[in-house]
Amino acid sequence: MAAPGQNVAVVVHRAGDLRLENRPIPEPGPNEVLLRMHSVGICGSDVHYWQHGRIGDFVVKDPMVLGHEASGTVIKVGSGVTHLKPGDRVAIEPGVPREMDEFCKSGRYNLSPTIFFCATPPDDGNLCRYYKHSASYCYKLPDNVTFEEGALIEPLSVGIHACKRAGVTLGSKVFVSGSGPIGLVNVIVAKMMGAAAVVVSDLSASRLQKAKEVGADFTIQVKNETPQEVASKVESVLGCMPEITVECTGVQACIQAGIYATRSGGTLVLVGLGPEMVTVPIVNAAVREVDIRGIFRYCNTWPVAIALLASKRINVKPLVTHRFPLEKALEAFETTKRGEGVKVMLKCDPTDQSP
Amino acid sequence: MAAPGQNVAVVVHRAGDLRLENRPIPEPGPNEVLLRMHSVGICGSDVHYWQHGRIGDFVVKDPMVLGHEASGTVIKVGSGVTHLKPGDRVAIEPGVPREMDEFCKSGRYNLSPTIFFCATPPDDGNLCRYYKHSASYCYKLPDNVTFEEGALIEPLSVGIHACKRAGVTLGSKVFVSGSGPIGLVNVIVAKMMGAAAVVVSDLSASRLQKAKEVGADFTIQVKNETPQEVASKVESVLGCMPEITVECTGVQACIQAGIYATRSGGTLVLVGLGPEMVTVPIVNAAVREVDIRGIFRYCNTWPVAIALLASKRINVKPLVTHRFPLEKALEAFETTKRGEGVKVMLKCDPTDQSP
Amino acid sequence: MAAPGQNVAVVVHRAGDLRLENRPIPEPGPNEVLLRMHSVGICGSDVHYWQHGRIGDFVVKDPMVLGHEASGTVIKVGSGVTHLKPGDRVAIEPGVPREMDEFCKSGRYNLSPTIFFCATPPDDGNLCRYYKHSASYCYKLPDNVTFEEGALIEPLSVGIHACKRAGVTLGSKVFVSGSGPIGLVNVIVAKMMGAAAVVVSDLSASRLQKAKEVGADFTIQVKNETPQEVASKVESVLGCMPEITVECTGVQACIQAGIYATRSGGTLVLVGLGPEMVTVPIVNAAVREVDIRGIFRYCNTWPVAIALLASKRINVKPLVTHRFPLEKALEAFETTKRGEGVKVMLKCDPTDQSP
Amino acid sequence: MAAPGQNVAVVVHRAGDLRLENRPIPEPGPNEVLLRMHSVGICGSDVHYWQHGRIGDFVVKDPMVLGHEASGTVIKVGSGVTHLKPGDRVAIEPGVPREMDEFCKSGRYNLSPTIFFCATPPDDGNLCRYYKHSASYCYKLPDNVTFEEGALIEPLSVGIHACKRAGVTLGSKVFVSGSGPIGLVNVIVAKMMGAAAVVVSDLSASRLQKAKEVGADFTIQVKNETPQEVASKVESVLGCMPEITVECTGVQACIQAGIYATRSGGTLVLVGLGPEMVTVPIVNAAVREVDIRGIFRYCNTWPVAIALLASKRINVKPLVTHRFPLEKALEAFETTKRGEGVKVMLKCDPTDQSP
Repeated sequence: MAAPGQNVAVVVHRAGDLRLENRPIPEPGPNEVLLRMHSVGICGSDVHYWQHGRIGDFVVKDPMVLGHEASGTVIKVGSGVTHLKPGDRVAIEPGVPREMDEFCKSGRYNLSPTIFFCATPPDDGNLCRYYKHSASYCYKLPDNVTFEEGALIEPLSVGIHACKRAGVTLGSKVFVSGSGPIGLVNVIVAKMMGAAAVVVSDLSASRLQKAKEVGADFTIQVKNETPQEVASKVESVLGCMPEITVECTGVQACIQAGIYATRSGGTLVLVGLGPEMVTVPIVNAAVREVDIRGIFRYCNTWPVAIALLASKRINVKPLVTHRFPLEKALEAFETTKRGEGVKVMLKCDPTDQSP
Repeated sequence: MAAPGQNVAVVVHRAGDLRLENRPIPEPGPNEVLLRMHSVGICGSDVHYWQHGRIGDFVVKDPMVLGHEASGTVIKVGSGVTHLKPGDRVAIEPGVPREMDEFCKSGRYNLSPTIFFCATPPDDGNLCRYYKHSASYCYKLPDNVTFEEGALIEPLSVGIHACKRAGVTLGSKVFVSGSGPIGLVNVIVAKMMGAAAVVVSDLSASRLQKAKEVGADFTIQVKNETPQEVASKVESVLGCMPEITVECTGVQACIQAGIYATRSGGTLVLVGLGPEMVTVPIVNAAVREVDIRGIFRYCNTWPVAIALLASKRINVKPLVTHRFPLEKALEAFETTKRGEGVKVMLKCDPTDQSP
Repeated sequence: MAAPGQNVAVVVHRAGDLRLENRPIPEPGPNEVLLRMHSVGICGSDVHYWQHGRIGDFVVKDPMVLGHEASGTVIKVGSGVTHLKPGDRVAIEPGVPREMDEFCKSGRYNLSPTIFFCATPPDDGNLCRYYKHSASYCYKLPDNVTFEEGALIEPLSVGIHACKRAGVTLGSKVFVSGSGPIGLVNVIVAKMMGAAAVVVSDLSASRLQKAKEVGADFTIQVKNETPQEVASKVESVLGCMPEITVECTGVQACIQAGIYATRSGGTLVLVGLGPEMVTVPIVNAAVREVDIRGIFRYCNTWPVAIALLASKRINVKPLVTHRFPLEKALEAFETTKRGEGVKVMLKCDPTDQSP
Repeated sequence: MAAPGQNVAVVVHRAGDLRLENRPIPEPGPNEVLLRMHSVGICGSDVHYWQHGRIGDFVVKDPMVLGHEASGTVIKVGSGVTHLKPGDRVAIEPGVPREMDEFCKSGRYNLSPTIFFCATPPDDGNLCRYYKHSASYCYKLPDNVTFEEGALIEPLSVGIHACKRAGVTLGSKVFVSGSGPIGLVNVIVAKMMGAAAVVVSDLSASRLQKAKEVGADFTIQVKNETPQEVASKVESVLGCMPEITVECTGVQACIQAGIYATRSGGTLVLVGLGPEMVTVPIVNAAVREVDIRGIFRYCNTWPVAIALLASKRINVKPLVTHRFPLEKALEAFETTKRGEGVKVMLKCDPTDQSP
């Protein structure tokens, strides 16, 4: 257990080099709060930085604290902070715009090129004991929402942003390609937004089983079908082509299947990311007016997610399959790397390891 | 019981003059189908034509068959009909555009000035045994959707259209003003579209109880509060101002409350209709960018409703509180007039009175 | 010159086989009008059917009349037609839905799979003397709009639909890739919709000169630049990245350039069609939330175009560079094939060859 | 002429009490810039504060500098400012959000309840020699845009925001009610956005003449017509009902006329503000799905306006009809109060009184 004044942090130094270190406890600025961290989920990107030291153009050059799916308790507030006070339990939105540029002013702050983002080099994340953050991007949790639910708002936000960009609405038929954690949150959110039927595809029967548990109406276990064959199966189980496809794998054949599968006039949202260059049946999409839209993280999702969690209309608790104390972070990362379970949660507060 | 070839119909002749008559069985045109009617709900407008002989500029000048919340079975199809066949169970969309004008071409056919509409003078409704209708506006019911659910798609459509025009989406806070049948369907639909919290107001405790049963999170029994006081109560129970208000009473004070209650940047949808001229705090709405939008019936709602009913995600069955055979239509109308229950259903098929 | 009762028509029999034939004068149905054709533009697709006998899955199996950019005069109306009368000058929208399906009901009738479309096999076009058409898709021309302007509404509609799907609005910066007829109409329309700056790229200096004439602010003559280099040039001449790119060539490298060139959060509209499978930097588009949207023809554009032409705010007359009488149709097609000028117009009325 | 270090300012103390005073030259904070003011237009609200000491709930309790239509030159930048440098000529957006609340995050910062706004009590405006402002809300002017054009972006922004909220688009028919400065900018902007025809109504022939000069297609001089009669005239001159009405008077009869005049499915935007409670034909609007939307100032308009001014596609210079040096501010206010001309401009830089 950390001595008072110690700030244990999970730090990646370079590819393959992950360490538990002690860092100074930061001092919040005028518009910041200092947090005692409680629960932080491990994301695939955390594992990727550990394994590869980079994601695309983002390269770990200096040691960086990992973690961006997080919640904690306010223990100190900056002089300009009015909406939070010590003791408030909060969920943390990891992206904080640094400039009030045109993207921010028009409500798409996630696209701001100079945004700070936890655990994207060179910005430190919050997988540690004590962390300071912009107060405007810390959201108070109601009493009936747990810290872990608060931490899960981050992956849930990917689903919310994707389903909003997809235009999921009452009666939508939705095809979710891929049944990993991000596929699952898209199933949950699509159903919450009124989708009449959601079908999920994956290679793995056990992952599809999880999709069923969180609300998928149908599942398709794919093997070596062509993209057109996958599209046909989707239409067959739904009884019609889906207006919306949410592609969560990034695999070329899956993107192709997503285009073929989507109804004319519908939308294919790209959530999973694979190789930079992809060969797609672009004419098929174009002449059927199937829009292809990507997402970059999310914006304006925390208040929505908190309202839903507080209303008890949404249940994300089954997503947490493993828990480790912060001191066992390396073990937790190994578990995540092996692909076990859905979401591994690190418990950062040695005095409170509850969900 | 009607002899073969007889077509018992519920006909209003003028204010206060409602009769059960025999009408000829119609012959479907090339793009029409002939239906054996099964279930037809009584709407407030049916009662209003019976009591007053008019609604606004729509005046009953010639005897008119009532009824527009309906489902039945195809027994004959016109020569040009391909998507339906005898034996198909269908729900009937009562509005059928007569011209392919700009409203139709742009997807808002409900606004087409020359539209045919069941039981709006001079167009006959379908509260009868045999009825012909445009095949394009008859929608096949899946086996797991009952005739009564099919008939209830009409009031449900008012809720769907209102909530779509309101922009209800994931996490919305919604205030529904009025807990009659239309208020109730708006509660059901708003929740289905992902609303995080719905509060309903009404004068009647028993009507509010029904709102609770169909999913309202909160209710407010109003007495003689000012509009501002009602708005304060709404904010108080929700913990914030709602982005959306759906006004279902048409009463001036309620419209005023709806404006005061709605969050800046939100939307007030007017569903209930009262006096032509209404005094409202228009500056309050304008400078807070609270949009005021009405609805006229609905469009593009039947496929959505059927998908939802088939998915078993929506339960409208509790709305039906009374059933009468077609022969007892006058008794059914008296019951509706007294305001008993929620929805009174007439059973038009003497051989099948099931839901 | 045709004898009375003769209906000279330009008919493609198979690849390479284009003939001037006499066809019977059709009789309009109840909701149709018979037209004496006046001006019909030759489209690239007309030439393509002549040269190749097919476009994608649309194959000329039986002789088909070409032509779909057309205007004429009503000479006979069906019994159910009320908004037109003999003598009315009209522009013809070539696509007419056959069924009132969900695409039609929701305002996207261009996507209806069973739509009739002039000069798309097996549907005959209107490059002839006498032609019947659905009255609802014939639009009366004001006196101050010429027949040729009426015929040009068809290519103009491609620009209107593309720019609407692109979301061009006040102050937009727009990159139009390709300066052929479709590129030009996109320049015209984008400027009309309030674009602050439009830059056009092409291989041909003379085509770029035409772009300047119709309102382009900047032009880029491309040679052998990489897609990224083209994108850099676009940013350089505009002073910023464009929010919108309208791709009118269908060439893979141009689609790639369109993705790189478009600002984060913007839209790339695919108008030009090339090979079915295209390799694109999909991750670049996805993580910058650059939407990729195609168009299929157009919908709801004729009333818009007529209003603009009547207001004299838009000048499409410079697009017509050649005119031929209908009898010289083969010569006109040869001229179009050689890529001379912009738009070749056929004059179908031997008694009135005016614009 | 002011001595070096003096900061002459136009200050309202209470109703009827307007003074020219010397104020200290402010020191910019880290994210601010200090400006030497050049041109500041007088707005109706400035005159109203002078005449009445209040607008609605906004009351002048302490002396307040007037002015919010402004441009100037950067003479000092805060430590955190990177996009501006001394010598830059800028236009000033007068509203600056103080908190990153949900309105700001979602792109509607104008609705943020704690926003700073020039010359709205208690916030000082910029009708003075030296003024500091948030750097993020100062926009660099291109060389080919004058200071006065920069100052006119503020009233132009009202038109841009109104026409965007109205949904003006290609081919729109628009009715602008009222031909004062705000009516005129709406005419200019509506035409820029592709409106096919704009009709303007007013009591004053000379104001309507100005509307013609800035681009109105039609004008209607109203006298004592009923609202329905005004609506009929609008339809008559346009040849159809307008999809959009922009109401700039706030007068009850004009709002009523705006409802009656607008086509079913269209939008009435309320820009002019009159009495708090207004009696309107709400059922007429509701059942024809005519949306009623207000505006509160504007957001995200400066970049749009600068792009248009730089492109020379828009000419606002005719709006400036009077100029006074800052020292003659009281005379300038008297001129504005008398309703002479359109826009009165104060020239704050004694060394440069050019436009």
